[in-house]
Amino acid sequence: MSDYKALTPETLSARLGTLDAMTNLLGGSSTDWQVREVGDGNLNLVFIVEGTAGSVIVKQALPYVRLVGDSWPLPLKRAYFEYHALIRQAERDPGSVPEILHFDETQALIIMERLQPHIILRQQMIAGRKVAGLGETIGRFCARNAFRGSDLSMETAKKKADLALFSDNVELCDITENLVFTDPYFDAEMNRYTTPQLDGVVAELRHDQMLKVEVQHMKRAFSAKAETLCHGDLHAGSIMVTDDESRVIDPEFAFYGPMGFDIGMLIGNYLMAYHAISAHIADDAACASYQEWVLETIDETWTTFCDEFSKLWRTERTGILYPHTLYEDQGHLMASELALEQLLSEIFEDLLGFAGIEMHRRILGLAHIAEFETIEDEDKRAPLETRSLKFGQALVMNRKRLHGIDRVVAMARQSQTGTGTS
Amino acid sequence: MSDYKALTPETLSARLGTLDAMTNLLGGSSTDWQVREVGDGNLNLVFIVEGTAGSVIVKQALPYVRLVGDSWPLPLKRAYFEYHALIRQAERDPGSVPEILHFDETQALIIMERLQPHIILRQQMIAGRKVAGLGETIGRFCARNAFRGSDLSMETAKKKADLALFSDNVELCDITENLVFTDPYFDAEMNRYTTPQLDGVVAELRHDQMLKVEVQHMKRAFSAKAETLCHGDLHAGSIMVTDDESRVIDPEFAFYGPMGFDIGMLIGNYLMAYHAISAHIADDAACASYQEWVLETIDETWTTFCDEFSKLWRTERTGILYPHTLYEDQGHLMASELALEQLLSEIFEDLLGFAGIEMHRRILGLAHIAEFETIEDEDKRAPLETRSLKFGQALVMNRKRLHGIDRVVAMARQSQTGTGTS
Repeated sequence: MSDYKALTPETLSARLGTLDAMTNLLGGSSTDWQVREVGDGNLNLVFIVEGTAGSVIVKQALPYVRLVGDSWPLPLKRAYFEYHALIRQAERDPGSVPEILHFDETQALIIMERLQPHIILRQQMIAGRKVAGLGETIGRFCARNAFRGSDLSMETAKKKADLALFSDNVELCDITENLVFTDPYFDAEMNRYTTPQLDGVVAELRHDQMLKVEVQHMKRAFSAKAETLCHGDLHAGSIMVTDDESRVIDPEFAFYGPMGFDIGMLIGNYLMAYHAISAHIADDAACASYQEWVLETIDETWTTFCDEFSKLWRTERTGILYPHTLYEDQGHLMASELALEQLLSEIFEDLLGFAGIEMHRRILGLAHIAEFETIEDEDKRAPLETRSLKFGQALVMNRKRLHGIDRVVAMARQSQTGTGTS
Repeated sequence: MSDYKALTPETLSARLGTLDAMTNLLGGSSTDWQVREVGDGNLNLVFIVEGTAGSVIVKQALPYVRLVGDSWPLPLKRAYFEYHALIRQAERDPGSVPEILHFDETQALIIMERLQPHIILRQQMIAGRKVAGLGETIGRFCARNAFRGSDLSMETAKKKADLALFSDNVELCDITENLVFTDPYFDAEMNRYTTPQLDGVVAELRHDQMLKVEVQHMKRAFSAKAETLCHGDLHAGSIMVTDDESRVIDPEFAFYGPMGFDIGMLIGNYLMAYHAISAHIADDAACASYQEWVLETIDETWTTFCDEFSKLWRTERTGILYPHTLYEDQGHLMASELALEQLLSEIFEDLLGFAGIEMHRRILGLAHIAEFETIEDEDKRAPLETRSLKFGQALVMNRKRLHGIDRVVAMARQSQTGTGTS
């Protein structure tokens, strides 16, 4: 840890006050800057620093899990992986992530653009506010990062070097390996869920041996399908929005994994929001309209992913895989298009598996989501959670047999209607 | 390259003569040692050094591809990967590989146990000599290395560190990516094949768009399915045998890849030997008997792989995947066994794909095999090569629909009988 020292609102200006990254944007004297600690996540310190001319975000890793305390140590190097992920995401999908102004590896801190007036997508959704273009923006983000971080596009020596770099992000992968893929499926110590209302369905899931086989196959994909650089933690808390703009933050869980991982986790979160929203929007018509928008967003996210991925396949396929020499250069366009469609089909299958698992762990594991947590009446919350748990199970078990996002959306819509929520 | 200098038979004793690794085993004065360069592979210098008391092998990488010359540079660091693979293989399957006596990274040289009176399996097979226990020994080698190098067994931080280490073996992976998965399927510069006899079947393969899609899916598995530490080049030239012992050598192509890669490549070689052998054994009964032995060896290799892998699954599953906490500890033994069978099924599918591709590249690509090359009469060679090419195509295209090695063996036997070779 050497010279590392956690920042405080009181010490920040003195410690960082001479950095160009700060003075250029903030203006005035550092002694006049306003510093607020606003970290509401589970892991880090986050400061908003405001000067006379502007403001910045200072994010610093703590040597432990903030949510739990120093009994759960977590290495500072995660800031290093976040930094490396952010610069790659900025290159692969310009404008999609906050601009980096300064990185200090020893202090595990990143000074970055403050997104303003953006709020966390999760808050926006709980408030029942739509975000124009959300599906397109994030679908494109996922496609560009999936494609451009892989052997479809990169020089393979660089891809292999990145694989090596990010494979050191052991501790954050460990969190996912345990909290997402393992703990929810047995009575693990850190789990919690709405009890006793969910006892029955939880017992059912944990006794579903087929489900537990499939989930571990997905965990194996997480651990060994090193296709591309994943964000690693893409959910409604990792997206900041206005009513018509979306940006992605917090890629400290970055790792080389399956192309369907990020978009799958995200769609799992959207489906939970879809199930939870009736508790947050009192007006039936408004609720139905918002739910439709969530489903449209799911559809648009995947549709845009496919469109963008296909465009990149046809225009930027410069990597070692599916080379032009074998396809286009031989006049074999069908081979190229067939390979693309089969790959998209495989990504979709993975997407559904990861979405379903995310819908389990957010209800049964350690880290829950506000969409459900803020429903104070447990008897109201539990049936909605149950619906998500069952839907997740269906996705995992049927991921090879669900054809097209429109069918999944139709299934979500019909199963909602069928069981009623009023 | 700094202080690197290639050894010669004349300089070897003087340069290495004071090393314990040499003097301990060889005995006498280094000036009396007999040194012969015997490298018959494509890449390296290999010396046998004999003293009064014993002998050793000195293997040194050259900074280029020996087969091609210094127009094709190849980094010395491959000796480093070979060394690291050898010590892991020795640990994971004791006695399976030559003992390492000394490693010098700067000189890219490994001094190792001389296997005696072993010869290369390929020579043994061309001579029509069987090897007792071959299938069992190598099936077990593949299973132990597949299992023990993976997240089924290893502490995941160590597995991730090994993934990072071997991901730097870029140049040797590049050889496989090009020579195995790409060049054979179009008119690449370094290709050669028996022409004009094979012109027809070669055109047919290269116009088979479905085949070229499937082969690139397998290439993607090679590049991104980082399940375990593979030998990377396991064929009949990487196994040394007596009539009843088998050892594995030359893992410089080691990389993290699919569990079915090594055993698939090897079985592809066995199937080619099966097709080629009629040209090498004049006596019909002896030929038929040897062919049966080759098929039995294929069966035994995979059957032993399954048995050993299953045993390790039940006794050494200490990694993050398919944990006992979810299965055995819950009394859910069926889940554990089902997951095992499904994983073996997936490995088998990969095996068939890699076997088929190996059967193409050894006939159409740069590096051919002696089983075919030593058949001087091209009109006799071509029909046998054609049979291998077609069989390989069938394996790649039907790998998801061939159930069990016995069915593949039956198919090989029947298609041999059906078309005749006399």
